Amino acid sequence: MIAGWGPTDRDGLTPIEGGVTAPGGFRAAGVVSGVKPSGKPDLALVAAEAPAAAAVMTTTNLVTASSCELTQRHAADGQAQAVVINAGNANVCTPNGEEHTRALAASAAEHLDVPDRDVLVMSTGVIGVPLPIDRITDAMPTVVTELSTDGGHAAAEAMLTTDTHTKEVAVEVTDARGGRCVVAGMAKGVGMIEPAMATLLVVLTTDAPLNGTIARRVLTGAVRSTFNRISVDGDGSTSDSIALLASGRAEQPPSLEATGRAVHAVCADLAEQVVADGEGATRVGAVTVTGAATEAEAEKLARAVATSLLVRAAIHGADPNWGRILMAMGTAGVAFDPRRVSVTCGGITVCRFGVAASFDRGQVAAAMDRPVVELGADVGSGDASATVLTCDLTPEYVRFNAEYTT
Amino acid sequence: MIAGWGPTDRDGLTPIEGGVTAPGGFRAAGVVSGVKPSGKPDLALVAAEAPAAAAVMTTTNLVTASSCELTQRHAADGQAQAVVINAGNANVCTPNGEEHTRALAASAAEHLDVPDRDVLVMSTGVIGVPLPIDRITDAMPTVVTELSTDGGHAAAEAMLTTDTHTKEVAVEVTDARGGRCVVAGMAKGVGMIEPAMATLLVVLTTDAPLNGTIARRVLTGAVRSTFNRISVDGDGSTSDSIALLASGRAEQPPSLEATGRAVHAVCADLAEQVVADGEGATRVGAVTVTGAATEAEAEKLARAVATSLLVRAAIHGADPNWGRILMAMGTAGVAFDPRRVSVTCGGITVCRFGVAASFDRGQVAAAMDRPVVELGADVGSGDASATVLTCDLTPEYVRFNAEYTT
Repeated sequence: MIAGWGPTDRDGLTPIEGGVTAPGGFRAAGVVSGVKPSGKPDLALVAAEAPAAAAVMTTTNLVTASSCELTQRHAADGQAQAVVINAGNANVCTPNGEEHTRALAASAAEHLDVPDRDVLVMSTGVIGVPLPIDRITDAMPTVVTELSTDGGHAAAEAMLTTDTHTKEVAVEVTDARGGRCVVAGMAKGVGMIEPAMATLLVVLTTDAPLNGTIARRVLTGAVRSTFNRISVDGDGSTSDSIALLASGRAEQPPSLEATGRAVHAVCADLAEQVVADGEGATRVGAVTVTGAATEAEAEKLARAVATSLLVRAAIHGADPNWGRILMAMGTAGVAFDPRRVSVTCGGITVCRFGVAASFDRGQVAAAMDRPVVELGADVGSGDASATVLTCDLTPEYVRFNAEYTT
Repeated sequence: MIAGWGPTDRDGLTPIEGGVTAPGGFRAAGVVSGVKPSGKPDLALVAAEAPAAAAVMTTTNLVTASSCELTQRHAADGQAQAVVINAGNANVCTPNGEEHTRALAASAAEHLDVPDRDVLVMSTGVIGVPLPIDRITDAMPTVVTELSTDGGHAAAEAMLTTDTHTKEVAVEVTDARGGRCVVAGMAKGVGMIEPAMATLLVVLTTDAPLNGTIARRVLTGAVRSTFNRISVDGDGSTSDSIALLASGRAEQPPSLEATGRAVHAVCADLAEQVVADGEGATRVGAVTVTGAATEAEAEKLARAVATSLLVRAAIHGADPNWGRILMAMGTAGVAFDPRRVSVTCGGITVCRFGVAASFDRGQVAAAMDRPVVELGADVGSGDASATVLTCDLTPEYVRFNAEYTT
């Protein structure tokens, strides 16, 4: 885990095997519906054995997938029992998009024998191409039949688009009074198919006994400092969705604080996996701004650095280019005194109080030539800090996204 | 000239030969001072024969070059007589930076025999490295001696960093009543040296008889819709500077409106040259948003499209990826109805009312495989429009900026 990333207090957190079916009360499956031209699995289902407390967050893009709108509507009562995910077609900017999203939820509901309103929907993939809804509804009986408590990995696989591997994590958390629960999650990272766009889908499960309101509070808190602090290309998707389902099956649940810590850790881990698998990426850049007046200002400054193309190209080249870091911070709209700023690359101070520090360039380059490059800036204004993760900008990223893919 | 770019009324505008010395009353020169390791010319001087009306605009980056601060101070009275430009070292984040900037102005002033406060300074190049001020002051007598009315091109050359060629333009404008003047300019485009950052320097000259207040109004108006509507990498420089000097030497000057039109045309032309020479660029992308409620909203939407990495990669690949255009507009913070949006690529409609239009993909790709790719989006909200220029994102951009250059 990257320093400064995820919960600072990791007491009682233990990584365990498995994905979304690790917590009690959940089954999952992934099958081939035939939407992906590759013939790979493309229909995932996660189902709780009984109605679960649920919270969701979806994209803030004004151009929004109808799946996001339906998921918000269906989770508004704080309860859901299943998440159906189709990959290979985002069903965005399509004729009959809303109708097809409703049909997806209805089909899953029918075969699971639950009300439509307890099914959430996530769709990812190409946009602007009509969804072949019949292929998915035809495959629905199979995916329901295949649901199992071992099915987490199959579901994680079926939600991918151009991700190079599945992203899963599970942790057990215990508290001082012997309470325990499991929190798990799966994500698909930024991927691109045809005229598609970056999309992020996440499903979290826990056996902790949350209600809808508390689930929402826990989810919002964790996302704020994890998924909302990563950037691969600065382009916000139309389909971003995250859902947390809580089965309440834990026999002796821990404190809410411990559960929240576990949700935070799971989000932090998945978010890091997403950035590390960013298109064309060879390294993660972890930008930590300290000494800011407020956490919001620290985040703004760190985000400006993490989304700068010049900084991201310098991370690729393991170049301790601190001038670009100062330049990027100067565009963030946050007041600070450049003469109080110090900058570290790979943990080594390269700029002190706004001017070059004396450092061994080869040594810094070596400290940056690693899978995770830590960039730090202290602005000398206060005590607040924030970390934003990005990946390096590579020629492969451009080649991948310039390809005439249709 | 790109459709929608520059003044819509081009009456009486005629391109003429030459650069900043084309208008009467200006001399210029460029020499080698030895700051650039390459030994190329790196010290430019533009001087009016008498005090000229002057207006300047400099970077909004909070980390600001001391040259920008001095230039603002010296132009505050609406008058200047010379612009001295050193390339190869931006003198930003350096010890004694302010002192060296003052020394630069004082040295030019001494050899030109004008007051210090009538000299503007622009510096560009590596940041964080102390400026070898002595080399520049040693070369000052030479550059003053070499000033000539033919020296515009030499000055344009000496202000470059990694630009591949000089950027110059001159136009003559006449009005219906027989008034005429000349407006000219030179720019250096985005370039990178060592731990430097994108910088844009522009000097405009005219023989029109403006005063400081009017010069400022004309300059602000032209920059607003030209230099402030281009983007190469979204990274704002610490050193951006533009100065307009007006000698008043035109014998029968045209209307202020005609002069403003000429300044606008010169800015539009130079801004286009800057984008076309963007690092690694192979094409210009001209993003025009029409049908917006206000021009400010049109500009925001066009900027969101023009700065999207995914759109810029699609421009590189001549890929009519309209989904990315809608996605980028959805992140702009401007309200619109996606179901009313139509999108054109290379002039061909690819999305109508938010869903795919029927189009021949090969034909659109061919229309995009050109030096200037025109992307249009009509949002159906009103009558306002704006164009923002960018360049394509290429693997060469990344390679260039990832290089370990120090």
